[in-house]
Amino acid sequence: MNLRAVLYIIAILIVFEGLSLLLPILCSLYYGDGDAWAILLSSVICLISGGLLALVTRNQSELKLREGFAIVVFGWTALAFFGALPFVMSGAIPSYTDAFFETMSGFSTTGATILRDIEALPHGLLFWRSMTHWLGGMGIVVLSLAILPLLGVGGMQLYKAEVPGPTKDRLSPRIAETAKILWGVYLLLSVVETVLLMFGGMSLFDALCHTFGTMATGGFSTKNASIAHYNSLYLELVIMLFMFLAGTNFSLHYRFLRGKRDAYHMDREFRFYLIFTLVCIMVVTFIVFFSRSSGIGASLRSAAFQVVSIMTTTGFGSDDFELWNPAGQLIMVFLMFIGGCAGSTGGSIKIIRIMLVLKHGVTEVKKLLHPNAFIPVRLGGRVVPPDVVTNILAFFIIYILIFIAGSVCMALLGLDSISACSSVAATLGNVGPGLGMVGPADNYAQVPVIGKWLLSLLMLLGRLELYTVIVIFIPDFWKK
Amino acid sequence: MNLRAVLYIIAILIVFEGLSLLLPILCSLYYGDGDAWAILLSSVICLISGGLLALVTRNQSELKLREGFAIVVFGWTALAFFGALPFVMSGAIPSYTDAFFETMSGFSTTGATILRDIEALPHGLLFWRSMTHWLGGMGIVVLSLAILPLLGVGGMQLYKAEVPGPTKDRLSPRIAETAKILWGVYLLLSVVETVLLMFGGMSLFDALCHTFGTMATGGFSTKNASIAHYNSLYLELVIMLFMFLAGTNFSLHYRFLRGKRDAYHMDREFRFYLIFTLVCIMVVTFIVFFSRSSGIGASLRSAAFQVVSIMTTTGFGSDDFELWNPAGQLIMVFLMFIGGCAGSTGGSIKIIRIMLVLKHGVTEVKKLLHPNAFIPVRLGGRVVPPDVVTNILAFFIIYILIFIAGSVCMALLGLDSISACSSVAATLGNVGPGLGMVGPADNYAQVPVIGKWLLSLLMLLGRLELYTVIVIFIPDFWKK
Repeated sequence: MNLRAVLYIIAILIVFEGLSLLLPILCSLYYGDGDAWAILLSSVICLISGGLLALVTRNQSELKLREGFAIVVFGWTALAFFGALPFVMSGAIPSYTDAFFETMSGFSTTGATILRDIEALPHGLLFWRSMTHWLGGMGIVVLSLAILPLLGVGGMQLYKAEVPGPTKDRLSPRIAETAKILWGVYLLLSVVETVLLMFGGMSLFDALCHTFGTMATGGFSTKNASIAHYNSLYLELVIMLFMFLAGTNFSLHYRFLRGKRDAYHMDREFRFYLIFTLVCIMVVTFIVFFSRSSGIGASLRSAAFQVVSIMTTTGFGSDDFELWNPAGQLIMVFLMFIGGCAGSTGGSIKIIRIMLVLKHGVTEVKKLLHPNAFIPVRLGGRVVPPDVVTNILAFFIIYILIFIAGSVCMALLGLDSISACSSVAATLGNVGPGLGMVGPADNYAQVPVIGKWLLSLLMLLGRLELYTVIVIFIPDFWKK
Repeated sequence: MNLRAVLYIIAILIVFEGLSLLLPILCSLYYGDGDAWAILLSSVICLISGGLLALVTRNQSELKLREGFAIVVFGWTALAFFGALPFVMSGAIPSYTDAFFETMSGFSTTGATILRDIEALPHGLLFWRSMTHWLGGMGIVVLSLAILPLLGVGGMQLYKAEVPGPTKDRLSPRIAETAKILWGVYLLLSVVETVLLMFGGMSLFDALCHTFGTMATGGFSTKNASIAHYNSLYLELVIMLFMFLAGTNFSLHYRFLRGKRDAYHMDREFRFYLIFTLVCIMVVTFIVFFSRSSGIGASLRSAAFQVVSIMTTTGFGSDDFELWNPAGQLIMVFLMFIGGCAGSTGGSIKIIRIMLVLKHGVTEVKKLLHPNAFIPVRLGGRVVPPDVVTNILAFFIIYILIFIAGSVCMALLGLDSISACSSVAATLGNVGPGLGMVGPADNYAQVPVIGKWLLSLLMLLGRLELYTVIVIFIPDFWKK
């Protein structure tokens, strides 16, 4: 492990975070809320700590596999660590635990909040809070399409060389090239959504914050009632569309923008994603329609927005699904385990894995009837390498096991069964709201301190595709 | 598909069931409850229908793979279908749905009951009810050690040739030989338990019925309060020991009885089973101790019995775990997914699969650090064939998917989330009691009719290791 090289990159990240804080400072000065000094101080701390660390660890050594894992895990943690400073220093979130939870929730694009009154926060802090989503989403797009495939994490090998770029074996040049392309797409979509939201009557501030929450499939809103605050069908449609796009593989957007008109249509994962979303919307519409006396149109509107919001792991609320009947609630909780496509900002298990897990099940049943035949798992006519399939199966299973262990821990900390299970499903899947104590109309404020740290870890685990974090805990990892 | 040969075997099974009903008739006559005629009539119906069907379909043709699946699935269903007759004819359970549910619960060794007042049932019917457990357990021991390994179901290939017997390729002689050996062990353990229970003050009737429920890891009791009725530490210890033994691979008992003193110790699955049980007992004792004001001894007693009862999928109750805190309840629900060893009468996912699933997860994490190394999954020093591993992973995943689909269906039928999920976990895992509406102190009477049929299907699915039933629904299965 070349710790020096790892620390150098993390130092650069912290400096970058310090620079990013300049935007919220501008926002704060514009609105004159008086919290600019706290953000400025945090920015200076980031710049000085990061700068000093970078000077001390400066080197040119090459990065290998293990350094890659370490940078991702400790980098994300460091960003949350320093990103929590403005909340604490301004006194808006007095407890560091709460501030760290909120910031990790931001950078991991989860959207779980400990704030009881979001609207009481000054504009600068609200802007920074939403911006952590956007930065986290930027990180995750590059991570999932440029870094994880090279690290061989959780079946992401399938996406090796999905996006064009230099194909040398060294990590850095390829990542830089891919990052540029993807960030271009990310930025473009963000600009379009912001403009569309402003057309719907949102201020630039609200439009930007909600765009940050949408594109990162995060879910932080600037309003206590989330999207329901606006009660605007137009805004819901725009946000729904962009949640869906944010849950799509960004390399498809890139190919589409480069002129391949059939980019979406040709992608198996995207087709499954689209059809699965539509089927879920139909089923949930039916459930909402029968469980409440609302009309079919209102039911469809609620169902469509909530299904897309939860499945893409965004977590924006247009309706409180805790008021639906148990079948509706259960479906929403199970949807928390689906997630968006690979290479999107969506979290959780992800469509491609769900697809391959299902295909593998069908293959195994077929094998029963033809015990001597070799039946491979196929995706769009191409055989998926068996080691990728077993890797994905292991991912699914480890995900379930972490969910079980996490739920028992949360119950031990005093949460009721439903709150315990759903809080873990919602943080591990980077969704945000759960059920019960942490339901859409509630927040995570009442979770005990240890629980907040545990859930923060789960957010990180889920966001970094489990393996990346787990590998850090293996003694072998630290050996020479 | 040689339907004739399949029907012939099923006919023999029905005749055998008719003969089995003679025992409850004797019991009924002895106690003079007046329900002997209903059981006699059912017996006659079985003998005539089975006999006629056997005459019509009589043949000597050989059985192959597909016939094996069909016999197992339709045989089990036919036994439940005819086995429900005594309950309906006597009027003790007027609804055929309820009677079928109860009998499927018996033959699948689940132990879920729709009876609100068990003690109101006449002795003959109670005896038959418990006997369905014992017969089902007999079936499952042979199925899991003699038939499923040959059919290649869910990783049971690992147990090919575990028990000595002729090794010809044809199914019948080998099965017959293995069956004799295993039934010998099953009978011996049953006799010993019955005697030990009678030492503890149970009548022969109660001792037999509870032995049937124990050895089959079923869980039907003759008392409304289940084992708590007796409030006897001795009886709880005896039943706990035999639940644990019934959850052990029967080929280990056979080898032990043949003089191999280290049979248990040498078996990896058994060691995992023992250690896992002890760890769970410790954790749950701790939870019970802190969630109630009972002493450490009483907590240990409750925890030990309930952990063994739920984990082996028996479902006998010495305490209502619904009164424990949420962490205790959640652990009990998660234990419903563990089950006993392969080759035992225990249901659910089973220890060997849990072990291999965990080992596979560890292997995949190791592979991240050594991407070019070949790291196989090992069990006791021997490499587990990769296709067996993927088969087991698929089993685990299909199990979870069925659980999810079933829970949503039950919620759609109007059950609350906890009752819906736990009723599915408890029937698919062949455990019996769940939580909420179907908790240890309640029963399945209030479940809607469609729900009872669905849960009956889940009991069958779980009992026959999923694949066996699923394969029947594949169109390919029925092709020439």
